[in-house]
Amino acid sequence: MIVISTVAQIKDVVHMEKKNGQTIGFVPTMGFLHEGHITLAKQARKENDVVIMSIFVNPLQFGPNEDYERYPRDPERDTVLAESAGVDYLFMPSVDDMYPDEPAVVLTVKKRTNALCGLKREGHFDGVATVVLKLFHITEPDKAYFGKKDAQQLAVIYGLVDSLNVRVTIVGVDTVREEDGLAKSSRNVYLLPEEREKAPAIYKVLSHVKEALEAGETNVGRLKEQAIHYLNDHSGAEVEYVEILSYPELEPVREIEGTIMIAAAVQYKNARLIDNVILTVKGRASCFEQ
Amino acid sequence: MIVISTVAQIKDVVHMEKKNGQTIGFVPTMGFLHEGHITLAKQARKENDVVIMSIFVNPLQFGPNEDYERYPRDPERDTVLAESAGVDYLFMPSVDDMYPDEPAVVLTVKKRTNALCGLKREGHFDGVATVVLKLFHITEPDKAYFGKKDAQQLAVIYGLVDSLNVRVTIVGVDTVREEDGLAKSSRNVYLLPEEREKAPAIYKVLSHVKEALEAGETNVGRLKEQAIHYLNDHSGAEVEYVEILSYPELEPVREIEGTIMIAAAVQYKNARLIDNVILTVKGRASCFEQ
Repeated sequence: MIVISTVAQIKDVVHMEKKNGQTIGFVPTMGFLHEGHITLAKQARKENDVVIMSIFVNPLQFGPNEDYERYPRDPERDTVLAESAGVDYLFMPSVDDMYPDEPAVVLTVKKRTNALCGLKREGHFDGVATVVLKLFHITEPDKAYFGKKDAQQLAVIYGLVDSLNVRVTIVGVDTVREEDGLAKSSRNVYLLPEEREKAPAIYKVLSHVKEALEAGETNVGRLKEQAIHYLNDHSGAEVEYVEILSYPELEPVREIEGTIMIAAAVQYKNARLIDNVILTVKGRASCFEQ
Repeated sequence: MIVISTVAQIKDVVHMEKKNGQTIGFVPTMGFLHEGHITLAKQARKENDVVIMSIFVNPLQFGPNEDYERYPRDPERDTVLAESAGVDYLFMPSVDDMYPDEPAVVLTVKKRTNALCGLKREGHFDGVATVVLKLFHITEPDKAYFGKKDAQQLAVIYGLVDSLNVRVTIVGVDTVREEDGLAKSSRNVYLLPEEREKAPAIYKVLSHVKEALEAGETNVGRLKEQAIHYLNDHSGAEVEYVEILSYPELEPVREIEGTIMIAAAVQYKNARLIDNVILTVKGRASCFEQ
C-alpha cells in the first residue's frame, strides 16, 4: 500500500492507473477506521482492480458547535488497518491542500435534507456533497462505497450523482454491528461504560418497528411514539428523533409500501449516535406490477 | 458530424472515444451560433482529436423575468454552422433529459458574483455553474472552450474548476467582433436598426478607458464616470454599469496593476448587451519581480 498526502500525487496515480485500463474502487472516510470501513474496503477490493481509500476529516461538514476539533484521529492505526483490508492507495490530504482558499463554488443540497440530521446539522450535507464531489473528481472512481449506517448521507450522494450526471456507481454497504447490535461508529469510543451498555437499545427498537411494519402495523405515528418512549427508558440517551420515511426520498410515508427507512438519533453525554434499518414492503402497487 | 439528442447516447460516444485514447475538446453553447462560437469550435478542432459542441438553452440560468422563452433558437442553421466548423458531435439535449426532476443538488457560486451581471441576475451564475458541471460530467472533456466576451462567466468557470478539482483545462478565447467593433452576440438580432448603428460605442469607450489606463491614468472613479456619460450620449441604450475590476477575482482595483477588466452592460429596448476588455498592467510589484 502506498500512502499519498497530496492532491497532485494522487491525481498522477489515478491518471497512470486509468491509462493502464485499471478500474478504480474508492472508499471515502474520515478515518479512525472500524470494521464498517474495513467492510467497505474489502468489498471494493473484490470489485475493482485498484482500491483507493481517503482519510479526510472535512471541516466544511462540521458546524461551529460540532466536534471537528475533537473528532477522533489515529492515522498510524488507520494505515495498518487500511493495508490489511487490501487498500492500494491511502490518500490522506491536508486541509490546506483540499481547500487552498475558501472555495468559490460549493454544492447546495436542496432535497432530502429537510428531515433527520439535516434539520439539526445546518449545512452539514452541503459540506459532505462538496467534499465527496471533489474527491470523486480527484480519484475518478468507477465505483464508490458508502455505509448504509449514514443513510441520509447515502441518499444525498445518490441525489448528487443523479442531479449532476456524475460518472460513478454508488455502492451502499450494509451496516456492520457489534455482537449486541450497536452499529459500529468512530464516535462509539466516546460512550461512557454505562452508556455503552444501554446503547444496543437503539438497534433493538428499530428492529422492533421494522417487524411491526412487516406484520401489517400501519399507524406510523404510534410506532414512532412507542419507540421514543422505549428509547427514553432504555437507551441511556436523550432521543433526538425517531422517523419512518420513504427511502431515499426521505419523505413522510402515507402508505406502508415501497422502500422505507426507520431512523433514530440519540444524544449521549459526549457522542451523538445515529442508526437505521431499511425495509421494502410490497404494497398494492407492487402487486399490480407483477 | 453526428447529431445526438440524449444524455445516454453522448455518454456512450464519450466512453467509446476515450477508450480509443482520443482527446476531447468541448464547446458548450446556447445555440443561435455566430462567429464567436465558430471561433471556439475551430480552436477546439485544432487542439483535440474529437470536438463536441452542446446546444442547450439552460432554464436554470434565466431569472423569472428574463428572456428564456424568447432566447433566439435556430437548430437547423446551427447544425450547418457546427458541421462547417469541424464539430464531430453536436449534442442537443431536451430540458427533460437534462433535468428529469428538479435537481436535488446544485452549485452555488460564492465568489466573483457580487459584481457586474451577478448583481442584477440573481442565481444566474449558480445556474451556469450547475449546467456546465453537468455537461463536463457528461462529455468528460480534456479542454473546454469559453468566450472572453462573457468574462464574468469565464471567471466563475475558473473558480468552479479550481474549487471542485475538475479535471479539465479551461481555454478562454478572444471576443469576436463585427467590423465596427460590436461584440458578436446571439442577442444582437434584437437590436433596432438605430440601436445597432450606435452600439459600437460600447467597445469604443471600453477601448478608450483601456488606453487611458495604459497611459498612466489612475483615477478609476473618473474614468468610469466619463465612460457612463459617453455611453449615455452615444450608445442609444440605458447604461447598467461600467466597472473596472481585477480579473478574474472581480474585486475593486486599488492600484492599476496586474490583470484588470473594464466591463460594461447596457440595456436596449429588446436586448441587454455586455462587453469588456482585459489588460495587464505591469505595476511596481512587477518591476521588482524582474
